[in-house]
Amino acid sequence: MDRVRVVVIGAGFGGLTVARSLAHASAPVEVVLVDRHNFHTFSPLLYQVATAGVAPDDIAPSLRGVVRRDRNVEFEMVEVVGVDFESRRVLVADGAPIAYDYLVLAAGAVSSDFGVPGVAEHALHLKSLADAIHVRRSVLCRFEASDRDPALIDDGELRVVVAGGGPTGVELSGALAELFTKVLAKDFRDLDVQRAEVVLVEATDSVLQSFSRPSRVEAVRELRARGVEIRLDAPIASVDGDGVVLRDGTRIAARTVIWCAGVQPSPLADALALPRGRGGGIAVGPDLSVETRGEVFVIGDFASAADRRGRPYPQLAPVAMQQARHVAHSIERRLAGRPTRRFRYVDKGTMATIGRRSAVAELPLRIRLGGTLGWLSWLGLHLVFLIGFRNRIVVLVNWVWNYLTWDRGNRVVMPPTELEEERGP
Amino acid sequence: MDRVRVVVIGAGFGGLTVARSLAHASAPVEVVLVDRHNFHTFSPLLYQVATAGVAPDDIAPSLRGVVRRDRNVEFEMVEVVGVDFESRRVLVADGAPIAYDYLVLAAGAVSSDFGVPGVAEHALHLKSLADAIHVRRSVLCRFEASDRDPALIDDGELRVVVAGGGPTGVELSGALAELFTKVLAKDFRDLDVQRAEVVLVEATDSVLQSFSRPSRVEAVRELRARGVEIRLDAPIASVDGDGVVLRDGTRIAARTVIWCAGVQPSPLADALALPRGRGGGIAVGPDLSVETRGEVFVIGDFASAADRRGRPYPQLAPVAMQQARHVAHSIERRLAGRPTRRFRYVDKGTMATIGRRSAVAELPLRIRLGGTLGWLSWLGLHLVFLIGFRNRIVVLVNWVWNYLTWDRGNRVVMPPTELEEERGP
Repeated sequence: MDRVRVVVIGAGFGGLTVARSLAHASAPVEVVLVDRHNFHTFSPLLYQVATAGVAPDDIAPSLRGVVRRDRNVEFEMVEVVGVDFESRRVLVADGAPIAYDYLVLAAGAVSSDFGVPGVAEHALHLKSLADAIHVRRSVLCRFEASDRDPALIDDGELRVVVAGGGPTGVELSGALAELFTKVLAKDFRDLDVQRAEVVLVEATDSVLQSFSRPSRVEAVRELRARGVEIRLDAPIASVDGDGVVLRDGTRIAARTVIWCAGVQPSPLADALALPRGRGGGIAVGPDLSVETRGEVFVIGDFASAADRRGRPYPQLAPVAMQQARHVAHSIERRLAGRPTRRFRYVDKGTMATIGRRSAVAELPLRIRLGGTLGWLSWLGLHLVFLIGFRNRIVVLVNWVWNYLTWDRGNRVVMPPTELEEERGP
Repeated sequence: MDRVRVVVIGAGFGGLTVARSLAHASAPVEVVLVDRHNFHTFSPLLYQVATAGVAPDDIAPSLRGVVRRDRNVEFEMVEVVGVDFESRRVLVADGAPIAYDYLVLAAGAVSSDFGVPGVAEHALHLKSLADAIHVRRSVLCRFEASDRDPALIDDGELRVVVAGGGPTGVELSGALAELFTKVLAKDFRDLDVQRAEVVLVEATDSVLQSFSRPSRVEAVRELRARGVEIRLDAPIASVDGDGVVLRDGTRIAARTVIWCAGVQPSPLADALALPRGRGGGIAVGPDLSVETRGEVFVIGDFASAADRRGRPYPQLAPVAMQQARHVAHSIERRLAGRPTRRFRYVDKGTMATIGRRSAVAELPLRIRLGGTLGWLSWLGLHLVFLIGFRNRIVVLVNWVWNYLTWDRGNRVVMPPTELEEERGP
C-alpha cells in the first residue's frame, strides 16, 4: 500500500501538533509540513521578546530540528500562495506544487485592524517574531531619542498605547510598565522616566473579558499598581503618527501604538476558493473538514469552527492543539475506513500574566489562581510547553536572572537597515 | 575644580575599556561614551552567531547596562559624523554636538576589500552583529533552496568560500564545516550534504600567519579533518555572483563568499582631518595621542600605532584594551600635570579555535597549547571576557548543549524584509 501524503500548511501550535501526531501514527502516512519560516514561533512569549526579557532565538526552535527524529515528516520552507483543490496540489511562491492526499490548513491569523483608519500605517503589532523585535527596537529607540532631546516627551515620545485588553494586551502592558520602571529608569539616569507611560485602551468595560470577575478585578488592580493607565469603554476611532483618537474625540498623544485588539485569518484565506465562516475563517463541519472537500481539514485561528451550541471556539493555542490531534485521528480513521467524529474542545483553563509575581489563571471546576501562585503556574506551564530542552534551560536562566536582578538582558537594537543590506547575491 | 569631560567614540573592546577605566579613576573626570549601537559586540563569538551556536543577543550586552553603576559615565547612542578639533566638539548625525576636553577615538575597523573587484557587491562579511546574522541567514537559505531544487548544487549553491586564513577565517571555516556535517546533514535528510563544501582561500602560503609553525600545521590538519578544503597561495582576483576567480584564473563556483581577508579603519577616519599612518589608521605618537592635538588619543584598529622598533601592533582585542588602559592613565597623568608615557604592548598570547575539542593557543614563554587543552582554555578565556553574568551563563548553557548533542540551537532565519517593515512612525 502506497503511503498517503498529508500536507500541513503552517507550523504554529496547530500545524506542528498535526505533524507530530501523525509522526507517531500507526497508519502509513507521510507528512509534509510547510511554513514560510524555518522556525516555530512560541507566541505566548512574544511579549517577553518585545520587552527584552528573552532572546528571539530562544522562542523560535528550528522546525527541521523539531521534526528531525520523525522519519515520516518532512519540512519545506516555502510560501504557500494557493491550493488547486481539483488536482490536490499546494501552490508555492517559488518552486514546484506539492501534491497531497489530505490537506490540513493551519495558516493561523494576523493582526486585524477592524477597519480602524491608520492602524496599518502607524501601529505596531505582536503576532510574529519580527513584530516583537520591531516593538523592542521601537520602544528602546524612543527612550534614546528622548534622552537626546527631552522636549520630545511632551509630544508623547515615551507614551505607549496598547490597544486591546485581551491577554496579549494585558501581558504586554504589564511587562512594558516593569521594563520602564525597573530597567530603563536605571539605564536612563538623566531622563525623567516617571514621564514614560503605558496606556491600555480597551473598547469594552473590562480587560480579560473571557476571565471571571475576580480575575478581571485582580488584573486591573495589578496593572494599575504597576503604573499602567487603563482606559475602559474607550473604542479607538483612528490611529495616526501622533497617537490615537478615541471615539469620544479624546486624543492620546503617543509615538508608539501597539495593536493587540484582535486577529483575522491569515491572508492565504483570500486566495482559497472556500466558504468562509464567522470571523472570516474557513468554514468547517463538526469534524473540522471542509464540507465539499472531505480531504481538507482546517484548524486553529484559520478555521471558523463552532461547538454544538454554535459558539465559536476561543482563539487559543490549546484549541488549535486539540483540533490538531483530532484531525490526526480523523485522518487515521478515514484511512481505516471508519467515520470521523465531532471535535470537542476540553477547556483546561486560561492564564494571563501581569508581571513579577502576578498572574491570573482560570482552571476547570471554577478553580482560580492569582498572585504568586498564578504566576508560578504560568511560568511552569510555559516552560513545559516551550519546545526544545535547550530553549527551556536558556529561558529559565533568563527568568531567574530577571527575577533576581530586576533586569532584562536583551536590550538589543538592531536597525533593520543593517540587517537588510543585501551584500550577497 | 570643574569636571573634565572625556568623550570616547566607539564602544568596542577599546572604547569600553577606556570608559570603565576612567569610571574608577581618582581624577575628577566625566566620560561620555558614544556608539551608533546600544550594545557592545563581543566580536570573538561572531562566528558562533553566524553558525547558529549562540544567539545574537547573548554576545551583545546593553551598553547602558554595562556602565549603569559607573556614575561618572554616560552613554549616548548617536552616529558620529565628524569632529571639530578647534572648538573641541564631536559632531553627530542627529543632535547637538558633544563638547570634550579629551577625546578618545576608538571607532574600530570595517572589512577591507583591498581593492578586489566585486567584494563590496557580492561578498558577506563578519565584522558586525548584523553581518553575523546575515551569514547565518544566507547559509541556511542556501540549504533550503538546494533542498527544494538540488540541481542548484551544481552551480555552487552549497559551496562557501571563506576568503582569508587569519583567525576569523579559520574559526568560521571550522565552525561552518561542523555545522554542515553534524547539524545540517541531519536537518536535510533528503539532501546530499556531502556535496556542501567549505573552501578556505588564503593568499599566502599558510593559514594563521602570526602563529608558530606547529600551530599552523595543526590548524591545517584539523581543518582538513573536518572537511574544509584549504587553498594556499591563492590570491583572489575578483568576486562575482557565481563565486570567486583566483589570480591564476581558476574559478571557484560558490553562491556564498565570506570576506575575512582583512580590515581597514572605520570610514569615520576619512571625515577627520588628521594624518594617517600605515594601514590607513590615524597616526599617533608613542603615547597614542595625535601629534598636533595632545588632547586626542586614538586606540585599537582605528589607530596606526607602532612599537619602539616601528612594527605595527597586531589588530587584536588585547591590544585595544591595553591601549585603552594606557590612555586612561595618560589622561589622569595629564590632569595631575605629569608627562605621559610610551605605550608598551604586553603580548599575553593569541588563540584560534578550529572546532569541537580543537584550538591552538600561543602563550608567552613559547608555551603552545593545542587540541582539547587549547580548546578548553579558549572556552574558559572567552567566557571570562564575555561581558555580563547572564550572557556567560547562557553562552555556557549553549556550549554544553552544543557539545553534548552535536546540535546548534539558533538556526533562525529572519528575513530582513520582515524586520524592515516600518509600520511605526
